Amino acid sequence: MPDDGATRPAQPLSSLAPLFAPRAVAVIGASADPQRIGGRPIAYALRAGFEGALYPVNPNRDEIQGVKAWPSVASIPEPIDFALLAIPAPGVPQALRDCAAKGAKAAVIFTAGFAEIGGDGPALQDEILAIGREHGVRLLGPNCLGLFNAATGHCPTFTSGIEAAMPVPGRVGLVTQSGAYGTHLLNMARDRRIGVRQWVSTGNEADVTAPECIGWMAASDEIDVIGVYMEGVNDRPALFRALEAARKARKPVVVMKVGRSAVGAQAAASHTASLAGSDASFDAALRRFGALRAKTTEEMLDILYATSRAPLPKGRKLGVLTVSGGAGVLIADAAEDVGLSLPPMPEAAQAAVLETNPLASARNPVDITAGVLNDFSKVTSATAVLRREGGYDMTAAFFTSWTASPVVGPKLREALLAGLDGDVDHPFAMICQGDAAVMESWEALGMMTFEDPSRAIHAMGALAHFAEAFDAPEETPPAPPEGVALPAGPLSELAAKRLLARAGVPIPDETLAADPQEAAEAAARLGVPCVLKIVSPDLAHKTEVGGVRLNVPPMEMETAAREMLETVRARAPHARIEGLLVGPMAGEGVELIVGARRDPVMGPVMLIGLGGVFTEVMKDVAVELAPLTPAQALKTLNGLRGAPLLHGARGKPPVDVAAAAEAISRLSALAAADPDGFESLEINPLLVTPSGVLALDALIEPRNREDDE
Amino acid sequence: MPDDGATRPAQPLSSLAPLFAPRAVAVIGASADPQRIGGRPIAYALRAGFEGALYPVNPNRDEIQGVKAWPSVASIPEPIDFALLAIPAPGVPQALRDCAAKGAKAAVIFTAGFAEIGGDGPALQDEILAIGREHGVRLLGPNCLGLFNAATGHCPTFTSGIEAAMPVPGRVGLVTQSGAYGTHLLNMARDRRIGVRQWVSTGNEADVTAPECIGWMAASDEIDVIGVYMEGVNDRPALFRALEAARKARKPVVVMKVGRSAVGAQAAASHTASLAGSDASFDAALRRFGALRAKTTEEMLDILYATSRAPLPKGRKLGVLTVSGGAGVLIADAAEDVGLSLPPMPEAAQAAVLETNPLASARNPVDITAGVLNDFSKVTSATAVLRREGGYDMTAAFFTSWTASPVVGPKLREALLAGLDGDVDHPFAMICQGDAAVMESWEALGMMTFEDPSRAIHAMGALAHFAEAFDAPEETPPAPPEGVALPAGPLSELAAKRLLARAGVPIPDETLAADPQEAAEAAARLGVPCVLKIVSPDLAHKTEVGGVRLNVPPMEMETAAREMLETVRARAPHARIEGLLVGPMAGEGVELIVGARRDPVMGPVMLIGLGGVFTEVMKDVAVELAPLTPAQALKTLNGLRGAPLLHGARGKPPVDVAAAAEAISRLSALAAADPDGFESLEINPLLVTPSGVLALDALIEPRNREDDE
Repeated sequence: MPDDGATRPAQPLSSLAPLFAPRAVAVIGASADPQRIGGRPIAYALRAGFEGALYPVNPNRDEIQGVKAWPSVASIPEPIDFALLAIPAPGVPQALRDCAAKGAKAAVIFTAGFAEIGGDGPALQDEILAIGREHGVRLLGPNCLGLFNAATGHCPTFTSGIEAAMPVPGRVGLVTQSGAYGTHLLNMARDRRIGVRQWVSTGNEADVTAPECIGWMAASDEIDVIGVYMEGVNDRPALFRALEAARKARKPVVVMKVGRSAVGAQAAASHTASLAGSDASFDAALRRFGALRAKTTEEMLDILYATSRAPLPKGRKLGVLTVSGGAGVLIADAAEDVGLSLPPMPEAAQAAVLETNPLASARNPVDITAGVLNDFSKVTSATAVLRREGGYDMTAAFFTSWTASPVVGPKLREALLAGLDGDVDHPFAMICQGDAAVMESWEALGMMTFEDPSRAIHAMGALAHFAEAFDAPEETPPAPPEGVALPAGPLSELAAKRLLARAGVPIPDETLAADPQEAAEAAARLGVPCVLKIVSPDLAHKTEVGGVRLNVPPMEMETAAREMLETVRARAPHARIEGLLVGPMAGEGVELIVGARRDPVMGPVMLIGLGGVFTEVMKDVAVELAPLTPAQALKTLNGLRGAPLLHGARGKPPVDVAAAAEAISRLSALAAADPDGFESLEINPLLVTPSGVLALDALIEPRNREDDE
Repeated sequence: MPDDGATRPAQPLSSLAPLFAPRAVAVIGASADPQRIGGRPIAYALRAGFEGALYPVNPNRDEIQGVKAWPSVASIPEPIDFALLAIPAPGVPQALRDCAAKGAKAAVIFTAGFAEIGGDGPALQDEILAIGREHGVRLLGPNCLGLFNAATGHCPTFTSGIEAAMPVPGRVGLVTQSGAYGTHLLNMARDRRIGVRQWVSTGNEADVTAPECIGWMAASDEIDVIGVYMEGVNDRPALFRALEAARKARKPVVVMKVGRSAVGAQAAASHTASLAGSDASFDAALRRFGALRAKTTEEMLDILYATSRAPLPKGRKLGVLTVSGGAGVLIADAAEDVGLSLPPMPEAAQAAVLETNPLASARNPVDITAGVLNDFSKVTSATAVLRREGGYDMTAAFFTSWTASPVVGPKLREALLAGLDGDVDHPFAMICQGDAAVMESWEALGMMTFEDPSRAIHAMGALAHFAEAFDAPEETPPAPPEGVALPAGPLSELAAKRLLARAGVPIPDETLAADPQEAAEAAARLGVPCVLKIVSPDLAHKTEVGGVRLNVPPMEMETAAREMLETVRARAPHARIEGLLVGPMAGEGVELIVGARRDPVMGPVMLIGLGGVFTEVMKDVAVELAPLTPAQALKTLNGLRGAPLLHGARGKPPVDVAAAAEAISRLSALAAADPDGFESLEINPLLVTPSGVLALDALIEPRNREDDE
């Protein structure tokens, strides 16, 4: 996948309908061998009972796999709306034209040999894209494994991921840029009994992109949960639209994006910039839209499994029922890791459990001990108490291999259901053992099943995450600053700060002095020890050339200014000097580094950290999409590891975090208003005092348009 | 499990031989029902072909499950060396005496109703322990599920974990404090084809402890790899002996210890102490002995699987062979997470791969593409190049579901083996899909199989870890300081520092002045700005009562000292004042906080962090067992997140880290020499300058003996 942020013309989601749910399908390059690339789609469609018309095209055969074959596309007697191309690359353009002439509005191109190779490949891909655009045919691929829609039996794919069987019925959508890894995922999903209803592999993404497919599934009333495997994003606006649509439709999206280890490959000039790889920006995008990123394949499948099997919980309170004390502790550990809480049962409820089962631990985890094997009514009573009086949002129950026993399993089932009044109306993880049939029998009750307690709890953490993300109030992004335009060329510090001030970021009361005498006059007016800085559009790092002095008394200002001019002229003879900046020394406070950066993939992002060592050494920097509301900026600040320093750690007074959040929001609005108008905007430091906030220094790096060529 | 560090009398490991490998076994409470607690051990022993004599004891039956039964222990015609007690608690003491009289040297007590309940339980447990001690009978349990030794068919257990089948042959030992979770693990291990040869559940640990069993397995020539599930440690010396023995025997030990979320429950007075829960100390112990801690059940099983299937690698270089580019990227991500490197193939080797397969990516990952399905000789050639010319220590190969195909699988097998010259002599992870039979067929070649690429790579990271831990040079612990005794009561700062100086930690050149005049004389002698501090054994926090002044010129010393005495007397009227401390102001440098703390479970541990916010806010503190060699201390310092500050970050000169490491080592030797002689020893700050190190302040908290009562 090309990892660039370039946007292609947005097309309506409805244009994907013929791709996912066509009525008449032509298969160009159809094969009689159900193992071959041109034969599998027909075999799959027949097995899945495709609802529409199927037209195998093959000049050498009258029928293919029992279906009447046609010598050419033109010979098909009815219009088609979908074409599958399983033919060598050179023949694709003409076949595409033929299919368009027959009415096709979507096509899948399996064939490799396009942009992914050198030589004529890219030109050939451009050609087929142009044909598609000209005739209004959406193209999936080339160099892809196709898709399936289990609801209609539409299976234009040669993946082996449905060779053994179609997925179990369900409402999970799966979008994978890699066909091979998509197949691997389909096999794992089948073994896990995850009901994948639609799957699409997007290959070269000449036209249809993975984000568009996510958007399609977000809008589809057949899909409740969306899993995504990505290698790169080349259609950011479509991705953001899709994620936002999914969030609004309360559909969990879990994304596995590979290429984390390439983070930081693009070294950048500014020292904050070097901390923001596009991987952190990708995380920021998912976070903004409430999607989750899975780091491993099993994590993704666990989350898809849980979100497709269980309702979302009302909160993070977990009740634990266990027959092993050790497992209870293990579950408590895992719960803390994912931020689920295990409040104790009310006293009366604990007493009720202990009354029938004196050897139990009744707090939470509720350990009813293996002794209940002799009296399953104790399972029922404890379950009932936990459910009715515990006030928990979710339940995790550890019954180990009891479920696998033909004797114990049914007793346990009856006892648990009685305790639940026969109704599993909340997320309930049955942590147990047994073969697929055993697990299915519990799933049929509306429970999730897991063998590893930690995985169960992590998946429940994801359920809680989505519940919160979907219930979070809508944030209105901050309005763009009025009448503030980003510059085309470099700006001096003073000009940069004045621009920020117009955008709403407070700056110190400073004077631009033309010469040492004016500097001295300015200092005398202020009547306090001053900061003196050189002003030049050519000096990004003033300190290094002797261009900054602190705490200069008014009486010494003229001399100090004269010395500074001499030093800077000696050290940077070619720098244009616009004057000297004189302002009052700032008060005590906490320094932040706040920057906006144009991420080539994800657009404008904010980098927010505490100043100095916290950013440079401790790497305590947050990356968030721009713009941020003041509330979002506040949450970001409070999420820094060093946040206690803002709230009065070590005997210092708390600083005005709200003012800092407001200033960050303003800077982010400036960046978002002209996302391609800059490389970076940096305030370093943004001084936060107990009574306010001041941008003490600023650097605006204009857009380097040469990058675009 | 009680979580105390109390040591019990050490017994020789040979005393466990009758427990794990007896010759004559009596089963007290034997049952004819193979499902009952007293029946299962007999059924298991018969099925496993127990090599020794088996004597069911039951006064009501002549035979049990086809074995002649005996009415009483006394009636058994031959001596026994092992007894299994599956009878109610009240009968256990007498039965134990009977068995001892018959020669038993080990006994397993299944029965619950001892120390784990209230009432008479603890007394009854003390009674059976006394009986065991008196007669030289080692006791496993009570309240445990027993053990098995698959090598001899000795199965005194009622776990359902071997009900379906005995484990596959192998050389893995498993020690679990929880019987129920141990059973859960056994079931998961069986499904994973992990060859558990010996398993023991230790229950209440009245006598035999989990650490002793680890020690037994470390010494056993039937065990190569040890897995441990722990809830608490009550025999620290045995644990350390066992871990050290395993390391020396090059046996990987992987430990899952639950109860992480209880970290920090014991709040402590000193602000560094509050960062060191015994969980961090437990981690430190495992790290010291080269053992690994698994956070989840599957992680533990993955590591047991890998270490029992593959040889240890020579280094961390991973070669990746894949038919999916996406999977290659995913593997590269996971490798970075666990510190495995993916160096590129040599240029000539890359050219060799591309010559036969121009569409491949030949760097590393070596992506031979799915096109090789049409020509498996390309698999062979790429594999041969990777193996012979890549110089890798390990190989990860991604072939997804190809292995599951009866057509493709055998071709792939032949092609890969040809490329490897038929010899899998290094850690080789086959990342693939298929049923157990498919996976077994690859395992039979000496390969590991995994379905999730991330899990494969994490397990390979563990292999690299153990290789390094076993090859690490032996460290000689620092010698205890001579003639330095820790105090029984509180010490003033000066006395504490002088004690540290005798232990080898540099301190400033300070004078104890009796009154302001002496202070002024001392300052005049030094002739530089001074530090002035109050000296009192009763003032742990001098700054808070006005007992510290910095940068006092010699001329102002007398006044400053007089003012300080007045202020301190006003604010802390009851503090005994021993005088005033005068010393030179220290130079510029980096401040460390270095403490030793008596961890109730793990003994003396060191807490090492950068001073101030780094420890208090950023929690950048390392915990290590005491003592530390200077080399270990240096490694610890360099592992801090803030370590760049020691090496000259942000334009500052580098400081003398070696001197800091030496001082830390000395403090640790002092702590280790009298591990029960203190609560905490803290140097805050330990100033590290470019030319050395100085303990600027020290606090020794003597042992609070009341805790012991």
